[in-house]
Amino acid sequence: MGGLAEPVTRLIDNFRKLPGIGTKSAQRMAFHLLKVETSEAEQLADAIVEMKRLIRRCSTCNNLTDIDPCHFCTHPNRNDRLLCVVEESNNILPIESTHEFNGRYHVLLGALSPLKGIGPDQLAIVSLIERLQSGTVEEIIIATNPNVEGETTALYLSKLIKPLNIRVTRIAMGLPVGSDLDYADSVTMTKALEGRREL
Amino acid sequence: MGGLAEPVTRLIDNFRKLPGIGTKSAQRMAFHLLKVETSEAEQLADAIVEMKRLIRRCSTCNNLTDIDPCHFCTHPNRNDRLLCVVEESNNILPIESTHEFNGRYHVLLGALSPLKGIGPDQLAIVSLIERLQSGTVEEIIIATNPNVEGETTALYLSKLIKPLNIRVTRIAMGLPVGSDLDYADSVTMTKALEGRREL
Repeated sequence: MGGLAEPVTRLIDNFRKLPGIGTKSAQRMAFHLLKVETSEAEQLADAIVEMKRLIRRCSTCNNLTDIDPCHFCTHPNRNDRLLCVVEESNNILPIESTHEFNGRYHVLLGALSPLKGIGPDQLAIVSLIERLQSGTVEEIIIATNPNVEGETTALYLSKLIKPLNIRVTRIAMGLPVGSDLDYADSVTMTKALEGRREL
Repeated sequence: MGGLAEPVTRLIDNFRKLPGIGTKSAQRMAFHLLKVETSEAEQLADAIVEMKRLIRRCSTCNNLTDIDPCHFCTHPNRNDRLLCVVEESNNILPIESTHEFNGRYHVLLGALSPLKGIGPDQLAIVSLIERLQSGTVEEIIIATNPNVEGETTALYLSKLIKPLNIRVTRIAMGLPVGSDLDYADSVTMTKALEGRREL
């Protein structure tokens, strides 16, 4: 990388820490910012700082928000009887994009992972159970990730919640729409077979 | 994108203005910054602002630099008789990475493009000719991009410079190393045939 001025390499190094950004992308982004108006570059810098300053966790559901409680928790048109449990705040986005779910959310802040030393105490499980004790929730949809940690967490939660007489469901696993059987891995294929439904 | 707090969408919108960054990548980057320490996010913001503050054009070659003249222009071990002409500052990087070129650079600040209204006056051509008049340069390597604008610029420069009794060369065009003839477009293939060399 010889030949780049230090302030440029410093920005490139900082961009490279972002997920999915390699050296080439980081360079392109930095060179782009070198070309644009200073005000536009400063807008980006400002947006970063402001986001970190304004965004905190919702005290009810742990979603990242600039107002507390967050608008999912306060929205009058959402269904209080349905609660969707996700690992992280950003998992809400793909669910919202379906326009199929109109309940409330609860962000666990992670998934059980004995290997990483993450047990039930590290997750927002106590606050989840507290929310359920109000008695309004009738169904919990566990939308943790379809991997070992997510599955373990789903199983753990279902055992914990079922005694409360609340329906516990899990999002379906199977072949993604538009994909091809030839490219399906055996675990997904197994899930797709197990989860087969009557036509 | 319903469901994201305004400071988050604002950062996502700003990230999306960067080259090669779509909505998904911008979201991942913003969510990553939400998770990291505030100090780390501020480091990125600071690197952006500092780069814009410190980087300017080298008064000799137009390279982007934090010291003027830039270190390519002042480095004692570089060959004054070789001058490589590039369109933009960032084009220097791939040339330097070859470790094959040890001359000086001249950044044109663009390429001739009648369609975009960019003529010789918009490019750093006068300053290039001035540099050549000192008489030390023996060969000019024109490393403008291998596209219509870059080719036009190369042709224009060669007509301008040849009368000064300076050797004008152009970087080779052909098939990229490691590629496959099956995937070569016809223009590249034509260039590869035209540029064939004795074995």
